[in-house]
Amino acid sequence: MSSPPVSLSDLAKLDDAQFVATVGGVYENSPWVAESVLEQAPFVSITSLHKAMAAAVDSASEDKKLALINAHPDLAGKAALADELTAESKEEQGKAGLATLTQTELDKFTKMNEEYKAKFGFVFILAVRNATKHTILSSFEARLKNTRMKEFEECVTQIHKIAWMRLLTVLEPADTGFLTCHVLDTAGGKPADKMKIVLKRVSGGGEIGIIGEFVTNEDGRLTGGPALKGNKEFTVGVYEWTFNVGDYFAKEGSALAGTPFLSNVPLVFGIDNPEDHYHVPLLCSPYGYSTYRGS
Amino acid sequence: MSSPPVSLSDLAKLDDAQFVATVGGVYENSPWVAESVLEQAPFVSITSLHKAMAAAVDSASEDKKLALINAHPDLAGKAALADELTAESKEEQGKAGLATLTQTELDKFTKMNEEYKAKFGFVFILAVRNATKHTILSSFEARLKNTRMKEFEECVTQIHKIAWMRLLTVLEPADTGFLTCHVLDTAGGKPADKMKIVLKRVSGGGEIGIIGEFVTNEDGRLTGGPALKGNKEFTVGVYEWTFNVGDYFAKEGSALAGTPFLSNVPLVFGIDNPEDHYHVPLLCSPYGYSTYRGS
Amino acid sequence: MSSPPVSLSDLAKLDDAQFVATVGGVYENSPWVAESVLEQAPFVSITSLHKAMAAAVDSASEDKKLALINAHPDLAGKAALADELTAESKEEQGKAGLATLTQTELDKFTKMNEEYKAKFGFVFILAVRNATKHTILSSFEARLKNTRMKEFEECVTQIHKIAWMRLLTVLEPADTGFLTCHVLDTAGGKPADKMKIVLKRVSGGGEIGIIGEFVTNEDGRLTGGPALKGNKEFTVGVYEWTFNVGDYFAKEGSALAGTPFLSNVPLVFGIDNPEDHYHVPLLCSPYGYSTYRGS
Amino acid sequence: MSSPPVSLSDLAKLDDAQFVATVGGVYENSPWVAESVLEQAPFVSITSLHKAMAAAVDSASEDKKLALINAHPDLAGKAALADELTAESKEEQGKAGLATLTQTELDKFTKMNEEYKAKFGFVFILAVRNATKHTILSSFEARLKNTRMKEFEECVTQIHKIAWMRLLTVLEPADTGFLTCHVLDTAGGKPADKMKIVLKRVSGGGEIGIIGEFVTNEDGRLTGGPALKGNKEFTVGVYEWTFNVGDYFAKEGSALAGTPFLSNVPLVFGIDNPEDHYHVPLLCSPYGYSTYRGS
Repeated sequence: MSSPPVSLSDLAKLDDAQFVATVGGVYENSPWVAESVLEQAPFVSITSLHKAMAAAVDSASEDKKLALINAHPDLAGKAALADELTAESKEEQGKAGLATLTQTELDKFTKMNEEYKAKFGFVFILAVRNATKHTILSSFEARLKNTRMKEFEECVTQIHKIAWMRLLTVLEPADTGFLTCHVLDTAGGKPADKMKIVLKRVSGGGEIGIIGEFVTNEDGRLTGGPALKGNKEFTVGVYEWTFNVGDYFAKEGSALAGTPFLSNVPLVFGIDNPEDHYHVPLLCSPYGYSTYRGS
Repeated sequence: MSSPPVSLSDLAKLDDAQFVATVGGVYENSPWVAESVLEQAPFVSITSLHKAMAAAVDSASEDKKLALINAHPDLAGKAALADELTAESKEEQGKAGLATLTQTELDKFTKMNEEYKAKFGFVFILAVRNATKHTILSSFEARLKNTRMKEFEECVTQIHKIAWMRLLTVLEPADTGFLTCHVLDTAGGKPADKMKIVLKRVSGGGEIGIIGEFVTNEDGRLTGGPALKGNKEFTVGVYEWTFNVGDYFAKEGSALAGTPFLSNVPLVFGIDNPEDHYHVPLLCSPYGYSTYRGS
Repeated sequence: MSSPPVSLSDLAKLDDAQFVATVGGVYENSPWVAESVLEQAPFVSITSLHKAMAAAVDSASEDKKLALINAHPDLAGKAALADELTAESKEEQGKAGLATLTQTELDKFTKMNEEYKAKFGFVFILAVRNATKHTILSSFEARLKNTRMKEFEECVTQIHKIAWMRLLTVLEPADTGFLTCHVLDTAGGKPADKMKIVLKRVSGGGEIGIIGEFVTNEDGRLTGGPALKGNKEFTVGVYEWTFNVGDYFAKEGSALAGTPFLSNVPLVFGIDNPEDHYHVPLLCSPYGYSTYRGS
Repeated sequence: MSSPPVSLSDLAKLDDAQFVATVGGVYENSPWVAESVLEQAPFVSITSLHKAMAAAVDSASEDKKLALINAHPDLAGKAALADELTAESKEEQGKAGLATLTQTELDKFTKMNEEYKAKFGFVFILAVRNATKHTILSSFEARLKNTRMKEFEECVTQIHKIAWMRLLTVLEPADTGFLTCHVLDTAGGKPADKMKIVLKRVSGGGEIGIIGEFVTNEDGRLTGGPALKGNKEFTVGVYEWTFNVGDYFAKEGSALAGTPFLSNVPLVFGIDNPEDHYHVPLLCSPYGYSTYRGS
């Protein structure tokens, strides 16, 4: 995983063997998935490549899917202890803190893994790259209550997510993603103009810290277009808007309190697909607000 | 302002002169306001005392209100430079950074003050205790566009807010305030149970930093009742909930992304009335949320 | 299905054979489900009985679940044409308009049923009691794209819903359900008091038309407690609140337009569980509103 | 008011006297308002004409404004009884049901009018064209509690609204208004595609009843552009969207209840400015929704 990401145009120039060597590992020990999409190449985006690979898995037989599930190691299991993981699995489990479990935690994982396998007949799979130990345990407990069929489906879903995250480390995303904003004043029933907004990158690829300062225009949108644009700026990670709602409502003449209910409103959100358009708006009054992933 | 706050029960024991000496200064240079509520004493809360004083002002003649407005100094004006402010005004203007303006900023304030007085015939009043220079300027510019009558009303409104903040430094609040929370899972149409929530005090009276960790019960409310309760805990200030939405939806079996759109949701809110009930809920799905000051 | 509903206290007095005779039909041709919950009797609510029966199904073997699925007739299939449905299935399919399909519609259903069975190896199941032909077709098309395992799970989920609806026709609900409301003025950051609200029953058990007129109190709740309460009033069906938002904001002094954006706000919602508490609030400003199923 | 509306291009051809004859009546008995905007003609929209006239009033002296206020008749007062109203006032008061008050209601209005005039020294003004008797009384009671200055401002605000409504009967709006929609699935975090929406005109200019049926595209917007466009279609009035949320979530595979919480979601909204863009979206999950006037 340490080679620099391959661009989509370079990917398009590879022969079949090279293509499979490059992206064959995103489905654990299952190069057949990459092979089955060869004839659909070239791909204009990681999104379309991932969609094709996922469709190949979904339409495979249940036996083939079961083999794919069982091609994965236990989380924090024997393979990990014996250092026999694939490079990809090793990095992912390490990032989730699974390489440094205490003995008690390790025993808990071992016990849950065994219970799970005894109940369902296959290994527990969870896309752990950005998860904490705590999230993994929450998920483990919840999923142990499922039926076998539901878990089988869930494992395949998780495998698609793992493949997505691996593709993002192997390939350079298409240059299509961007981030926009809109602020609506729901007390006034109009776009909020002249609101100051700060954008920070909290974690992920690229500079951490404040990466932009913006002011809304008459339509409540960012003056100057998208806040982030293209695969150099708009990277996978966690971001935070801070909306200066206090100054805006002061300007609007609202009689705010000495300590207003809302003043600087933070909004923390994750970008998982750097090729996509993320619209992350704020609908606010002096006493409440909403946000959502829009389009 | 440096004496310790007087309790409401002690306030009730004071004679008329002492009462006026204690709270007479909350309306600038206008002890007549305190005098006019004497016969309504004793007061069970700062809220009821403030309400009575505000009503006395509101029902006064326009001449008397004009005198009250003009009893206030300019913001960053001559009285400030000459160090002739009341102790209350001095502290308030200092906290807003008005004591350390640059010459350019001072000139700007002077010019706006003059323009304002020339247009309306009275001084500009804004409750500045927790405002920044920037908020004050935003407000100044907006209010210069008003009609004289609207501004007259606005100044009286601001004077009531100043009085409120001054009362909070002079008196000890009644022990009635509390903070509650509720989390609703709008994707599942049910209360969000077992969600972890952290409460921090960002600024204000009392310990700064994490002041509580909570878990929601089956009804989506905090196990153990209010998060803060009474005038020792529930103080004027800025607070922050952090909702662990990511772990909750992992537990619910949502197939979240490697970098989920929502993970730890922060919600920053101000408490202005420590005698009141603040209900600050979260309505959330994996892709959006709302909050508001509820009851 | 034409006998009067049995009360839960009468159900508790029945012997095992009578119990199975009464509720054994709610899982199509599968009295074993009722038999397996006998030792958990008596049941204090339809909700708890249904929960026990559903758990019995969920923990059964996949073979037993497959037999349960295949105990159901095709929707609009041969059994229906030959008039060989169980009384329950006949009534349900009739209510959804499936007894009066045109020949073209019938052909479409037949084709989809065949395609579905060829792909998955079992019959398509959908709880159709209150669905239209159009909803059924939308669902059919969407579900044909699923994997076999996902569809297997979905069929079991639908069977639980069918069982729920059948239990509601056989038994009299516990007297625990009620409907509450709350109106919050998000522009003012306070409960909306003195708002007029009308409640209509649009369809379902009981009187159709206006069934209540209410005014909110100082806390934004209905004066006089729940709008509906108990199994005589709070019945399965579709209801409609109408909130007189226009008069409220006129009273609050909002300068509304000649034709205000919001005036009488309708909110149509369904009650599916008459033993439950439904809280259906309105959060409104003059320019927008939210609602949700709360608790 | 019975002549056909004048187009903006015809208005532009009128000489000064004709211009004042045409729009001079929109400010009651005060043709000076129309005269003072003559030099800003021609006007491209009713919106810009109204804005200019309102600015002329706002910048007039307080004496001139007081005269304007007092140029209005009492609501349901002596002038009405004596049939001495201007044609405009007569029509407006009639539409609000004030021409057919019972003696008791008339006495109540008379008493409130007298109390109001005694307290403030001018007449009560409310834009009543689309208001009911009940709304007028709610507003009357609330406003009697204001200060004189606040009421003076409020009366001017109401006069601007009356002028707006009168302009809409005298002139033909510019052809710039349109209505758009957007549906977001907040449970799925994506635009809601293939949702069926019906649009009705409930009251106002043009055909009453269903005026359009729409389906959302992949971006959750209406296939085919705006739902209404231009001054023939997009008229002042009350409209209703009905969103077929039930079929949408059935298609998405949500396991809905037999009687789903949400099925057909109605959204009733008013259009007051036919020259403007109204964006009226729906953000929905199976258990809740929001809407607002967007842009």
